[in-house]
Formats: sequence, C-alpha cells, structure tokens
Amino acid sequence: VRGPYVEVLKVSSRSNPNSVAGAMAGVVRQSGAVEVQVIGAGALNQAIKAIAIARGYVAPSGIDLVCVPTFHDIEIDGEGRTAIRLAIEDRERRQPSAVVGSTVDLTTFADTTKPVQSPAV
Amino acid sequence: VRGPYVEVLKVSSRSNPNSVAGAMAGVVRQSGAVEVQVIGAGALNQAIKAIAIARGYVAPSGIDLVCVPTFHDIEIDGEGRTAIRLAIEDRERRQPSAVVGSTVDLTTFADTTKPVQSPAV
Repeated sequence: VRGPYVEVLKVSSRSNPNSVAGAMAGVVRQSGAVEVQVIGAGALNQAIKAIAIARGYVAPSGIDLVCVPTFHDIEIDGEGRTAIRLAIEDRERRQPSAVVGSTVDLTTFADTTKPVQSPAV
Repeated sequence: VRGPYVEVLKVSSRSNPNSVAGAMAGVVRQSGAVEVQVIGAGALNQAIKAIAIARGYVAPSGIDLVCVPTFHDIEIDGEGRTAIRLAIEDRERRQPSAVVGSTVDLTTFADTTKPVQSPAV
C-alpha cells in the first residue's frame, strides 16, 4: 500500500515536541507518511506529543493524521533492545498528489514553490 | 462519525501492557473504539505498548487498529495537568456489526454467543 521507502525520524527524550511536529508535518506533506523510532518512555512521550501537535498542523490540508505503533528489535552496542516504531500517516493513506489536488494551501510549501531554475544551455 | 459514548480506560505506569491490550481488544470488538487517558511518560509507554500488542489481537478479525493522540487539560487535586488521550479505533472506523458480518470468528465472543432466551408470554 505504501512505497518501499519511508523516512524515519529518531526522537529522543530531549527532542522538542514542537520541532518534531514541524518535521513530521513536512515529511507527511511531501511523501504521505513518516516513521518515528524511539527507545524508552521519555522519547516515546516526546514523539506522541509531537504527533498530537502535528495533527493540528496538517488538519487544515484535510489530513487526518493517525499513528500505528509496532515493536522493533534492534541492537545497540551489541545489546538487544526493543524500540517502538510509530508509523504516522493519513488515516486514508492518501498520497500528497491527491491531497495537493484538493485542499492543500501551497503557500505553506516554502521549499517547493521556489521558481525552478532552467539549466544553463 | 462515532457514537457519543466511548469507554475510557485509565492506564498507569504500573499497568501490565498485556492486560491493557486484552481490555482494549475486547472493547474495540464490542463497541468499535476505546479511549485511553494517561498522565506522564511511564503511563503513556504502557499504553502504547498495549496498542502494539492489541493490534495483533484484533488483526485476524480484519481490524486495522490505529491511534490518535490528543491533549486534554484536566484537574487533579485542584492542580491543572495535561493528560494525553489516545483514541483507539479501526482505521476505517468500521463498527462491530459490519465487522461481525465479514470476518470475525464468533467463537471469541463468549458473552454474545449465548442463546437468547425468549421472553415468557
């Protein structure tokens, strides 16, 4: 259903939820989904707060952001740990092209609305 | 979209994620959705683990469990606190009757498969 590549944001207990929310909203607008990987309760707390904030950022674009938590076994310094991955995406898994075609306000896409330079010929 | 009444489970940092997952799965199967309210990173951690576990419990019934975090201002002992509410529901917001009509294994519904007594006449 989703493309093979989804950007993974790493969030720690010291991450600022507002900054993470901005990053989440940006990636979701551009590619339709983002994943967050966290280890530990403090990091998870910041990530979930960020999702609650990001919901408000993308809601005006018609995106209903939901989150799907799963366990992931990872290895850190040779030790096995269990991380939590949060898949964050539109409830209906709408892709950005469809969203852009309907209700997205393009003025919020500062990076993508710059005029494209023609290559020198 | 959803009925006016959704059961709210309170989860603490000492809650057992497996037990909470069982409760979540039961309520979702019966009423289509459940909410969890948590205060603090430890409680949130247990709740998110429980959702990851509950996903596996309800997936065979065709339910794709997603979670939607929101902030809720509450008062405890006269002090303002910010709780996190997690709305937990099928991605497509399917209601149990529709789900039962498709793929649910009724042997798991011990309480609802009892033969209904005819009223005395």
